[in-house]
Amino acid sequence: MPPLITLTTDFGLSDVYVGVMKGVIFGVCPDARVIDLTHGIPAQNLIAGSLALESAIPYFPAGTIHTVVVDPGVGSDRNIVIVRTESSLFVAPDNGVLTLPLILQPPKEMIKLTEAASPFLRQPVSATFHGRDVFAPVAAHLANGMPLSSLGSPCAISEVISIPVPKVEISEMNDLIELRAPILAADHFGNLVTALRRDALDSLCASVASEAPRESEVEVRVKSAIWTGVAKTFASAPVGAPVAYFGSGGRLEVAVRNGSAVMTLEALAGDFVSLQWKSKTAQ
Amino acid sequence: MPPLITLTTDFGLSDVYVGVMKGVIFGVCPDARVIDLTHGIPAQNLIAGSLALESAIPYFPAGTIHTVVVDPGVGSDRNIVIVRTESSLFVAPDNGVLTLPLILQPPKEMIKLTEAASPFLRQPVSATFHGRDVFAPVAAHLANGMPLSSLGSPCAISEVISIPVPKVEISEMNDLIELRAPILAADHFGNLVTALRRDALDSLCASVASEAPRESEVEVRVKSAIWTGVAKTFASAPVGAPVAYFGSGGRLEVAVRNGSAVMTLEALAGDFVSLQWKSKTAQ
Amino acid sequence: MPPLITLTTDFGLSDVYVGVMKGVIFGVCPDARVIDLTHGIPAQNLIAGSLALESAIPYFPAGTIHTVVVDPGVGSDRNIVIVRTESSLFVAPDNGVLTLPLILQPPKEMIKLTEAASPFLRQPVSATFHGRDVFAPVAAHLANGMPLSSLGSPCAISEVISIPVPKVEISEMNDLIELRAPILAADHFGNLVTALRRDALDSLCASVASEAPRESEVEVRVKSAIWTGVAKTFASAPVGAPVAYFGSGGRLEVAVRNGSAVMTLEALAGDFVSLQWKSKTAQ
Repeated sequence: MPPLITLTTDFGLSDVYVGVMKGVIFGVCPDARVIDLTHGIPAQNLIAGSLALESAIPYFPAGTIHTVVVDPGVGSDRNIVIVRTESSLFVAPDNGVLTLPLILQPPKEMIKLTEAASPFLRQPVSATFHGRDVFAPVAAHLANGMPLSSLGSPCAISEVISIPVPKVEISEMNDLIELRAPILAADHFGNLVTALRRDALDSLCASVASEAPRESEVEVRVKSAIWTGVAKTFASAPVGAPVAYFGSGGRLEVAVRNGSAVMTLEALAGDFVSLQWKSKTAQ
Repeated sequence: MPPLITLTTDFGLSDVYVGVMKGVIFGVCPDARVIDLTHGIPAQNLIAGSLALESAIPYFPAGTIHTVVVDPGVGSDRNIVIVRTESSLFVAPDNGVLTLPLILQPPKEMIKLTEAASPFLRQPVSATFHGRDVFAPVAAHLANGMPLSSLGSPCAISEVISIPVPKVEISEMNDLIELRAPILAADHFGNLVTALRRDALDSLCASVASEAPRESEVEVRVKSAIWTGVAKTFASAPVGAPVAYFGSGGRLEVAVRNGSAVMTLEALAGDFVSLQWKSKTAQ
Repeated sequence: MPPLITLTTDFGLSDVYVGVMKGVIFGVCPDARVIDLTHGIPAQNLIAGSLALESAIPYFPAGTIHTVVVDPGVGSDRNIVIVRTESSLFVAPDNGVLTLPLILQPPKEMIKLTEAASPFLRQPVSATFHGRDVFAPVAAHLANGMPLSSLGSPCAISEVISIPVPKVEISEMNDLIELRAPILAADHFGNLVTALRRDALDSLCASVASEAPRESEVEVRVKSAIWTGVAKTFASAPVGAPVAYFGSGGRLEVAVRNGSAVMTLEALAGDFVSLQWKSKTAQ
């Protein structure tokens, strides 16, 4: 099976940057398959990059090399890390962009790039385009089977930078349970993606001695909009109406059927989706 | 020759959706070549998807698998069909998006996906992202040579959904023949694509006992603009002037040289391009 | 090693044009790897296409075939050329779009497409989409190893069209040296790319009997903005401040850290970046 390399950047597709990275990769590893995960990460938006990776990596074959160039610190002295998990390799700046994917796939081995990597980089390394001179050749050498130890020195997960991810809060008052899920990002359709992962719902509810609510009985609020029920899919909502559902990435999302939740609800990253339901223990 | 899979969606390129579909495909069929036909179909626009496929499929090698995810009904009970034509395989929702390509390439074999396909889908199948959980793995298994019969049950062309395609009308009055070609869509350059296919022109003219007109003698109208002549190419028009020609997809198009016909003529899908010429039989 | 073909066009990614070119390529050369250099060249902008190629080609393996369809003259009688350099093959309209890459990589062999190429084109050749009917099949046949002589007749570099590239001017007055670098284009981040190549700096300075200046002592002006110093990278500037540096493509660029130089400085192609420094011979 040919080695798979994915690219995630904030380069956009108007310029040659992405194409140039592929030229470098094929020069080092002619057999590689290169997949564009996305080049539409909003400029230097680490949380958006982290969410994009989280929602994508479970669907790639074991051994895939994920190359991440969302890198506001290029040219500064930030580190570059290579992380091996049970099923993936990541090459990324040490700026927290790997925070969410490494919760999903805990690190098994981790190195920081050192001078040892120099012979494998494109020389001279430019100050502004490490995607071409560092990330692309490193990913391609990894695709060729180079061991991590040839490229740097081991480091511990505690040594690398994490970004703070807004947390879901749950509270109980007067028999009413409220869960507040911060909105983390919006996608191309204007759907809102929140901090609430479905697989965290049970333990959140347990923390207030509740069970997970019936989806049909939950009251959902986003800014001034209120409606009842978490749906299986946005297809179940009337056209133009808001709908909450657990999206394909496993997170609570809010959409407007055949429309944009960003526009209709005037909601953005930093706002909240609130879920309220009656406590069963109180019934 | 490695199997070719094309992707046509309305996902855009800002998110990871397209990259994730490729991850799933390569996990099932590592040898596949995946080509992006376009991910810029306007959201849920079936006629635009159908036109895109019609203009592209004649140029792909025999055996290409065309995967179409323009799917406003995802999560509802719409069917998914696999269609074999003489030179292609199509995997698409049964919503009419295949209407135009199947006029060009008539179906030889056709199935609706059934429970039989379950072992080959990504489980659990999400309610919102069938591109990842259904279309991608089905296309990849077909690329591996899986027979259609392993994935569903046969159905007849008459059982599947077609979309109504606006029809070209031709009429004769007072020695003048008028052909009205509805505008179906506009492309990235602002060129207008109409319902009139060049290969239908002779039979349309025969229906009013005329011959096809001389291209230089045709009067063309789009909204309030009028000019004379159907050209070989938009390059023959002066900069800024409108020009009608049969485009690379075989359909009558209207462009504005070095400009946008959408903007200059204020014309859109639903408007008409009118061609008028003097009846020869009347001369 | 599989043959590499790159594509550079002004087609955008909303339509199927690029996908169709790949279908044609794989039909002729199933082993080819096709890389999108960019499809975001502003419509028919030859200088932007030329700059894109210049900044990309040094990073591709020897033998790469660069296919360029920035072609305002499609359908007219402009020629199509194939150029072999020491490390690349180019297929492009003869309209000057190769001007900058051919300064970087001088031609070794050059032909104009003639009737001899007819059997290798998609017939009938349309008047509007030579990308599909001419450029794609020619690139694919070259990838299969077809000799240039099978496709046309030799021509000299002096016979092909060049575009005038705005020149850097250097002058000395009153112990002050001023270098005026025309802005050629802006990239996706709003960074301004100028006509000044780093590797030309020494000879430019020598022409006024100066040495290259110390980067920290240069006064930089763009329209009404003035600041001191050419930096190693945009990362060294405060957020929101303009910064001049030699970019990853080897040219002097001006950026605004975490912003857009186009917007902040209100500068565009046709404006100048001025560098001034004190003559050392005068000190």
